[in-house]
Amino acid sequence: MVYISGEEMTNYASKLIVKSWIEPYFDTGKWEEFDLSCINRDKTDDQVLHDAVSAGSKIGAIFKEPTITPTKEQVEEFGLSRPLGSPNGAMRKGWNGITISRDTIHIEGVELGFKQPVLFERHAVGGEYGAGWKTVGRGKLLTTFHPEKGDPLLVDSRDLDNDHNVAVVYHNPLDNVTDLAHHFFQRCLEQEVVPYVVTKKTVFKWQEGFWEIHKSVFDEHYKEKFASKGLLSKTGGELQHLISDAATMQIIRWTGGNFGMSAHNYDGDMLTDEVAQVHRSPGFITSNLIGKRDDGVMIKEFEASHGTVTDLWHAHLRGEETSLNPLGLVEAMIGAMQHGAKLELEAGGPEENYEKVMTWTTTLRKAMHNTFRYGQGTRDLSGPDGFTTEDFVKKVAWRLERYLIQGEDETAPELSEPDRAFRRNHKVDEDAVQEMFASYDTDGNGSIDIDEFTNLLVKLGVAPQKVDREKGKKADV
Amino acid sequence: MVYISGEEMTNYASKLIVKSWIEPYFDTGKWEEFDLSCINRDKTDDQVLHDAVSAGSKIGAIFKEPTITPTKEQVEEFGLSRPLGSPNGAMRKGWNGITISRDTIHIEGVELGFKQPVLFERHAVGGEYGAGWKTVGRGKLLTTFHPEKGDPLLVDSRDLDNDHNVAVVYHNPLDNVTDLAHHFFQRCLEQEVVPYVVTKKTVFKWQEGFWEIHKSVFDEHYKEKFASKGLLSKTGGELQHLISDAATMQIIRWTGGNFGMSAHNYDGDMLTDEVAQVHRSPGFITSNLIGKRDDGVMIKEFEASHGTVTDLWHAHLRGEETSLNPLGLVEAMIGAMQHGAKLELEAGGPEENYEKVMTWTTTLRKAMHNTFRYGQGTRDLSGPDGFTTEDFVKKVAWRLERYLIQGEDETAPELSEPDRAFRRNHKVDEDAVQEMFASYDTDGNGSIDIDEFTNLLVKLGVAPQKVDREKGKKADV
Repeated sequence: MVYISGEEMTNYASKLIVKSWIEPYFDTGKWEEFDLSCINRDKTDDQVLHDAVSAGSKIGAIFKEPTITPTKEQVEEFGLSRPLGSPNGAMRKGWNGITISRDTIHIEGVELGFKQPVLFERHAVGGEYGAGWKTVGRGKLLTTFHPEKGDPLLVDSRDLDNDHNVAVVYHNPLDNVTDLAHHFFQRCLEQEVVPYVVTKKTVFKWQEGFWEIHKSVFDEHYKEKFASKGLLSKTGGELQHLISDAATMQIIRWTGGNFGMSAHNYDGDMLTDEVAQVHRSPGFITSNLIGKRDDGVMIKEFEASHGTVTDLWHAHLRGEETSLNPLGLVEAMIGAMQHGAKLELEAGGPEENYEKVMTWTTTLRKAMHNTFRYGQGTRDLSGPDGFTTEDFVKKVAWRLERYLIQGEDETAPELSEPDRAFRRNHKVDEDAVQEMFASYDTDGNGSIDIDEFTNLLVKLGVAPQKVDREKGKKADV
Repeated sequence: MVYISGEEMTNYASKLIVKSWIEPYFDTGKWEEFDLSCINRDKTDDQVLHDAVSAGSKIGAIFKEPTITPTKEQVEEFGLSRPLGSPNGAMRKGWNGITISRDTIHIEGVELGFKQPVLFERHAVGGEYGAGWKTVGRGKLLTTFHPEKGDPLLVDSRDLDNDHNVAVVYHNPLDNVTDLAHHFFQRCLEQEVVPYVVTKKTVFKWQEGFWEIHKSVFDEHYKEKFASKGLLSKTGGELQHLISDAATMQIIRWTGGNFGMSAHNYDGDMLTDEVAQVHRSPGFITSNLIGKRDDGVMIKEFEASHGTVTDLWHAHLRGEETSLNPLGLVEAMIGAMQHGAKLELEAGGPEENYEKVMTWTTTLRKAMHNTFRYGQGTRDLSGPDGFTTEDFVKKVAWRLERYLIQGEDETAPELSEPDRAFRRNHKVDEDAVQEMFASYDTDGNGSIDIDEFTNLLVKLGVAPQKVDREKGKKADV
């Protein structure tokens, strides 16, 4: 597989993990490694990014550490010779990005946010991320399309009558939405969750195509399969469309999980951030870019959905103890290794290699989850008594060896939801909570009964409902 | 003032209100009335819409009932000769729409959703609502700007390599953002709430201008005033920017209210819908279009943020009892009458007319609020024993007369939050609530104590926090 390294705290932790958990069992010398730190990108005149994209395209399974796209200030701080673009943009393009899959990560036996999985597809291309724009004054804005064959077509002509305007143009390429839809429905079916397609097509008429492609793929290939598993009982037996603004509320209501959403690029950005918040933090969400090689092989790049964790890195540099939860990083490594093994097997590689990777990854996951369940997790889950970054890596390595080499088996205690106040940067305002409690404890007896609880849920807008609202909305906006 | 009528249930209720509450005290013969029902628009070849816009521009104070923009099916159902566009679009254009102000409506002495006001400005122009688009194949998409003077400028040139694309072009006119910012900050200052500007400018760089204009208006005209009222203590003494995806979570966390947000058109659409959900329903949110005549006079159009309430209309036609809460309609009428009176006074009209409108509107509000507080409200707030549409109008008319003519004064009982299950189309899934209750009642004693409550808030992602998260977010998206 391809291993792309980044910098700061996640680079430090990834190195520890590779050394202590992977190298004792695998020869990582066969990995193709690329250093996408700002310094190295600058030094190689960004050749390293091009090489990484080519290698990823050839091999098809990529793990990527979080990287930095330097701000103006960072360009100076790092002494770079020029600004550097986002590597993610180059990868989406180079690998014909179809979707960014962002799912909730669950630790078996530990409750996080959503009880059951939430799957998300965010269309990896199109929309305002790739927009062209200019600040302009008064005049005429003309957009024309020149097809490969045939006459030019006027897309839009408009008179701008303000002194200060921004003109914005973008396109949504739709060819790969068929692949996106298959990827989405296959995953929903496998995990047995209810699929929803989210757009604003009622007003943005050009979004109709995104929905239509999903709907036709669904009706032709998946409808019966979903129906036979009882997954369409809540949606009237059909694939359901959700308007983007309604989706913002459903994500908060449906804390039971067991649903999937597929959305355009910007809506997906907004909504997956919300999913991450409900599910504790971005540390418990995957971020996998799915692309496709010209010969049809799926390229899958796996990364954590968080950044390089600068604050812990600075603490580490100051010689302070840190406690980084590597779950997102490790799930990404597991994903990349499994996909790499699968591709190798499909290309005629030996079955035993594939089996070894599958056994190892499953066992690692168990060793890691059990370590959390024994209260030996990082401090965001296990509280102030939790382990440091280094000790957690050591403890899991020790447990992994017991399971793999000595064949031990054990059942760790289940944990109800760890206190969310353990999260870094999370400080609940206790006075405000006390005030809220008093307002819901309407009979003032110091506790909230089921009626008060129902009122509370309803008021917070998170009560589960039998019929979801679509009515009562403004007809024309 | 200008009175624009629509159709269905809200037209029926508005007629009752005008007849029973307004006509006994005012000569409505001076109002300029326009019937924007689909039938009349069709009959007049939409001349009535043009006339309404002209009159609104001349007079400057407009009340508008909810209207229908007919779907294909409705064009047939109503027997229209052709499709009709949204009247709102024509009004935003005709009145140089600056912002759609959507605020929470509060009933004094009755708790709804947010405890204190939430103010919202949604930029009334620009963005994808006015986009031009075409479905196109392979070829080159070229966007050029032709200024009134000087050479053409290339805005964007891109090769489309998919067989199926949509090309989208729009512009954001920014000249009126200065007016928007003044309107926003003045309102926030008056209501003493903390202002936030919401954009996605970190990625959509062309949104920087929207923020910069706000920031410069704020720093020059408002910073000291806000600071002296202590309204910047939470924001480090500066105007604060919120990224759009972070704003979706804050709206749910900040149920205490006392904040304002100013956003672009689409973000404003998404976020105000969320505000409406947290604050019980769109029935408790205003929707006022603020524009500006060429001579600088502010044009203000007031309407409810809900639609024509088709389901109740059909029930009414079937001869069934209905119970429409007219609060949104009435707040809009009050707003239009007050603005009309103010404009008349400024144009040299007699002071006594102005005073009469102010006294009447304030007294009407009190009569209506007290009717709710006596449990004589409509069924969405007062439950199954609440009044019908007609009886509520009668009861308020009776109380209004007592207050106005007989000079009576009374203090009605305060109400804690009315049961949200009273809302139409609202059916809480009680089994699911029971299940949620059990999961939060971790010691299983049948009630939720303060610790369990804190855990619940944190888990639902709605716990008030001392420091809000911005860290731990993905650096490059």
